[in-house]
Amino acid sequence: MSGGGTAIAVDAVGGDHAPDAVVEGTLIALSADPSLAVLLVGPESVVSEAASRSERITPIVATEVIGMDESPTQSVRVKRDSSIVVGCRLIKEGKAGGFFSAGNTGAVLAAGTLIVGRIAGVSRPAIGAVFPTAAKPSVVVDIGASSDCRPEHLVAFAHMGAAYARTLLGLEEPSVGLLSIGEEPNKGSTLVVQAHRLMADSVPGFVGNVEGRDVPRGVVDVVVTDGFTGNVVVKVMEGVSATLIAQMKHAMTSSPLRTAAASVLAPAMRELGRRMDPDVYGGAPLLGVAGAVLIGHGSSGPEAVAAGVAASATAVRGGLTEHIAAAVSTA
Amino acid sequence: MSGGGTAIAVDAVGGDHAPDAVVEGTLIALSADPSLAVLLVGPESVVSEAASRSERITPIVATEVIGMDESPTQSVRVKRDSSIVVGCRLIKEGKAGGFFSAGNTGAVLAAGTLIVGRIAGVSRPAIGAVFPTAAKPSVVVDIGASSDCRPEHLVAFAHMGAAYARTLLGLEEPSVGLLSIGEEPNKGSTLVVQAHRLMADSVPGFVGNVEGRDVPRGVVDVVVTDGFTGNVVVKVMEGVSATLIAQMKHAMTSSPLRTAAASVLAPAMRELGRRMDPDVYGGAPLLGVAGAVLIGHGSSGPEAVAAGVAASATAVRGGLTEHIAAAVSTA
Repeated sequence: MSGGGTAIAVDAVGGDHAPDAVVEGTLIALSADPSLAVLLVGPESVVSEAASRSERITPIVATEVIGMDESPTQSVRVKRDSSIVVGCRLIKEGKAGGFFSAGNTGAVLAAGTLIVGRIAGVSRPAIGAVFPTAAKPSVVVDIGASSDCRPEHLVAFAHMGAAYARTLLGLEEPSVGLLSIGEEPNKGSTLVVQAHRLMADSVPGFVGNVEGRDVPRGVVDVVVTDGFTGNVVVKVMEGVSATLIAQMKHAMTSSPLRTAAASVLAPAMRELGRRMDPDVYGGAPLLGVAGAVLIGHGSSGPEAVAAGVAASATAVRGGLTEHIAAAVSTA
Repeated sequence: MSGGGTAIAVDAVGGDHAPDAVVEGTLIALSADPSLAVLLVGPESVVSEAASRSERITPIVATEVIGMDESPTQSVRVKRDSSIVVGCRLIKEGKAGGFFSAGNTGAVLAAGTLIVGRIAGVSRPAIGAVFPTAAKPSVVVDIGASSDCRPEHLVAFAHMGAAYARTLLGLEEPSVGLLSIGEEPNKGSTLVVQAHRLMADSVPGFVGNVEGRDVPRGVVDVVVTDGFTGNVVVKVMEGVSATLIAQMKHAMTSSPLRTAAASVLAPAMRELGRRMDPDVYGGAPLLGVAGAVLIGHGSSGPEAVAAGVAASATAVRGGLTEHIAAAVSTA
């Protein structure tokens, strides 16, 4: 490991295509960033083989794996030598500034909270999602860490999401919207109406309520919502895109002439697909823990892993943790 | 008005394209259904002119209009001679079996609840949305009547949504899913976990939790959720479709060759657009009031109005109110 660079721990066995996609993605990230070093966490055979391919990979052996469907809190408590627990411990011990895993989201949330620990003043970590919109990337927070929220939690989510947008998306003063069912401050659930009042007084860049249709349009940089609604929103967006694209493909190949026309358009469609691919933003940040922890999609391929590792490094260098700590303490 | 037929009240001044789109749509519905009669409610000049075009249109004069942005409850209380209030009163007085309006959704909800009245045993009316999915049309309920719900409200929404699917979509035993953030019964907010337990015991066709991505896929016939989440979901679906289609149009016309190829595909895209158009299902039913009240999209054109009037008639003939009353009383 090179001195003076940024060290990121990476879960070698997280995700559907691990370990190959993780190792390939790590090598891509390293070749793009000369001051990056990776602590690759996983089974001895995997991490030592990977370390032989780059001197900036340090092998860290973890003998256990937390499966995608295992109970998060339980598995984090029991599997003390799992890649997720060991990766988080590397942050706690100051050996890594961040951790990237495409593994069990709930387990990363639990390990981040229990092992890395919360930033002072943060009562609940949240999971953000960064995704492309018609305009520019947006952050939605929370997308699943907390299903039942109080108004003050949403205020903290706003601060953390804005800190992420400043650090990772390079926005000076990100605009922040509260997801509701009408623009007026009195529209929405009791939770949202109360949160609106608190946010209006305390959140820089707060523009008021936004509605469901504003999320894919990218009307604001940060969309604040409880983890139940946020999770539903992100999955609805995934589902609509997949359904619509499948229906279009079907319609476009319903005759030989149409198939020929579709082949002319294929490069444009692929380019659009790349532009609308959320994986390029490096995964979902775990906001509010004392380190740059990012969670990749379970289906992450090498490019998505590379983006996740790079985003973790950017978060460390940009001082994400410090920005969140400052925002939460002044709030 | 012909004797023995089905009479539906129609709001002549509801929607962005009223009154022309409403009158045209009413005439389309009447010509498609010889046993339908319409009580057209609105300003004297509009309704008497329309009545001169069909003997099955009875003009009902209402001198006031509730605007799209007026406060629902307030306007319903004050504007006693508005088309929405008068239309609902026609149901209450037994002169119409249903009411269709493409006007102010909240005002129709308020007038339906206050004037038509709730079905015995229904504590909260709900708004359903019928929309096309990859598989077949689905009903989402509630999409905005109740932002803050208790578990027993969701149970009632399930019964009402299933009654609608039986009556309007012709399904014998519709499958019912509870919108959550994981399939397991213990996943989700406290509200949803408690509702799951109640629904498992009492709702015919209940298949358990469904996730956001299952909604556009059409995994179940009826998706049950609180009005806050449901409203967000429906608007996210609208927004993603609009954004994706706009991006595709842009990509498809980025060169002369691509524009030519796109023109070959235009009929297939139009056909797909028609198949995925929610307006063909006649608007959003107001479930739990003692009449077949349907709310059209504000942008409804003549075809959407015709579908809404026809769906109201189908709901009356299929005994929607009686089915809901029976489901709620046995629950």
